[in-house]
Amino acid sequence: MADHFSDLLLAAIASKGSPVCVGLDPVAERLPAALRPANPDDGSAALDAICEFSATVIDAVSEHVPAIKIQSACFERYRGDGVEALYELIGEARDRGLFVILDAKRGDIGISADHYAAATFDPPRMDPDCLADRVAVPHAITINGYLGADGIMPFCRRTQGAFVLVRTSNPGGDELQRMMLASGHTVAEQAAIMVDRLGADCRGECGYSDLGAVVGATKREEIANLRQLMPHSLFLVPGYGAQGGTAEDVRASFNRDGTGAIITASRSVIYAFDENDADWSGAIEQAAIRFAAEVRGIIS
Amino acid sequence: MADHFSDLLLAAIASKGSPVCVGLDPVAERLPAALRPANPDDGSAALDAICEFSATVIDAVSEHVPAIKIQSACFERYRGDGVEALYELIGEARDRGLFVILDAKRGDIGISADHYAAATFDPPRMDPDCLADRVAVPHAITINGYLGADGIMPFCRRTQGAFVLVRTSNPGGDELQRMMLASGHTVAEQAAIMVDRLGADCRGECGYSDLGAVVGATKREEIANLRQLMPHSLFLVPGYGAQGGTAEDVRASFNRDGTGAIITASRSVIYAFDENDADWSGAIEQAAIRFAAEVRGIIS
Repeated sequence: MADHFSDLLLAAIASKGSPVCVGLDPVAERLPAALRPANPDDGSAALDAICEFSATVIDAVSEHVPAIKIQSACFERYRGDGVEALYELIGEARDRGLFVILDAKRGDIGISADHYAAATFDPPRMDPDCLADRVAVPHAITINGYLGADGIMPFCRRTQGAFVLVRTSNPGGDELQRMMLASGHTVAEQAAIMVDRLGADCRGECGYSDLGAVVGATKREEIANLRQLMPHSLFLVPGYGAQGGTAEDVRASFNRDGTGAIITASRSVIYAFDENDADWSGAIEQAAIRFAAEVRGIIS
Repeated sequence: MADHFSDLLLAAIASKGSPVCVGLDPVAERLPAALRPANPDDGSAALDAICEFSATVIDAVSEHVPAIKIQSACFERYRGDGVEALYELIGEARDRGLFVILDAKRGDIGISADHYAAATFDPPRMDPDCLADRVAVPHAITINGYLGADGIMPFCRRTQGAFVLVRTSNPGGDELQRMMLASGHTVAEQAAIMVDRLGADCRGECGYSDLGAVVGATKREEIANLRQLMPHSLFLVPGYGAQGGTAEDVRASFNRDGTGAIITASRSVIYAFDENDADWSGAIEQAAIRFAAEVRGIIS
């Protein structure tokens, strides 16, 4: 049973000694001055710059962190070329030994969910005669659970899994997610109950299921409640650093044995350089080292 | 004010005389025998076949229906090439005078929602020096509202708009969407209240806002409630035909003046042929004509 997505993530975390993930959501305007494209309207040049930056970030952080989360939208923005570049980067990150999460927040009903799952985890070879036509796939994807079980289960695939959006930390997240149900639970808590139930039959050796949860709560009690409702789900916790998550929030997202969550920082790591710094990749590497050490310190 | 997305859709409906939309969600296995690829593992051949089929469907239905809804997942399955093909088809459908809805169900927080909106409605030119590098965009996209206002508003763009998933008709849709809140509303009704509020400041000459709603309810009273809560939103109503929606359901989704909804049928139109029928496109055209007449009959 040790080949479940959850076992793979826990092994990656153990090998690096800190449950952290770097969020890669690059935009052309924020790149180091040396990489920024001269003509902002030239999509190809912008995409090339973003890819060069992303590959360097992967190089810089891969020795220090177990996982990377790549924001699909930053690449989809460049349509077909962007999507191809995205999967090339996923392959590069895997080659470096990183656990790769595609942050695509997909969500559709049955048949279309099957297509998205196939696109992510089991894409067709575009040239079946070409052995070099390598098809890179991420280890996990983020998905939206508003459509219920038949929108979720196609992504629950044993060696690959999904993090279901349960609670998001963006300004608008409260509107539906914090609504109180007649049952006494919030909508987010109800989503948590659903994720826990759907994951019950697909757990790895480590005890965690193939269905994780995105929990970006900014209130500690809310995180602790969700932790109790989903004892067997791995939490992907965005919002540390630039978005204001605290050490207390981080602690609440773990189970008592110190496992069960992976903390994500994006901007505070990938933009940790002065725009004219010649050694910008060194600044990113140092930020990744600091981030991993910080989280290690909080939970140990 | 007549250039709002809602005005454009109502004008298209008026010109064809029936508020219907053909859902295009082609899969290789369901194509006419003459088109089906010989090797199912050859992604390029499968994509080519799907594109040929889709272009023929667009040709066959464009005189008879005002709108087409293209399922993004069916094309994303083929990654970069699929995405490029998708946008080519969007361009072809627009050239035929169809109102084009991209069924992509995107949903992300602020900045990433901006990227998805840019990818959909305002993509960069990949070759800024090439005037022939036509960039096709749909008129509208489907989106997921679980993340709230900042995940929705980037798609509300006056000449382009969004249909927010409020109530889906898939088996798992009930689990979160029909939960009763302490307020006495269901979660779907709460989503409806949010959509109505967010659309209040962006209405076209016709009175409908740039934020429509996907309402796939299968119970008439539920549709009628949602219609009352969102008097200024256009409803995109899937599930007619193959998924079992009835004439009564169709009626309940319109306002009293007979406007306010567009009814979608997918499989019952695009697969309305015997697999060995040489004139499969004629069968699709006839199904589109029947579908448009049926809905016209129900609401008039």
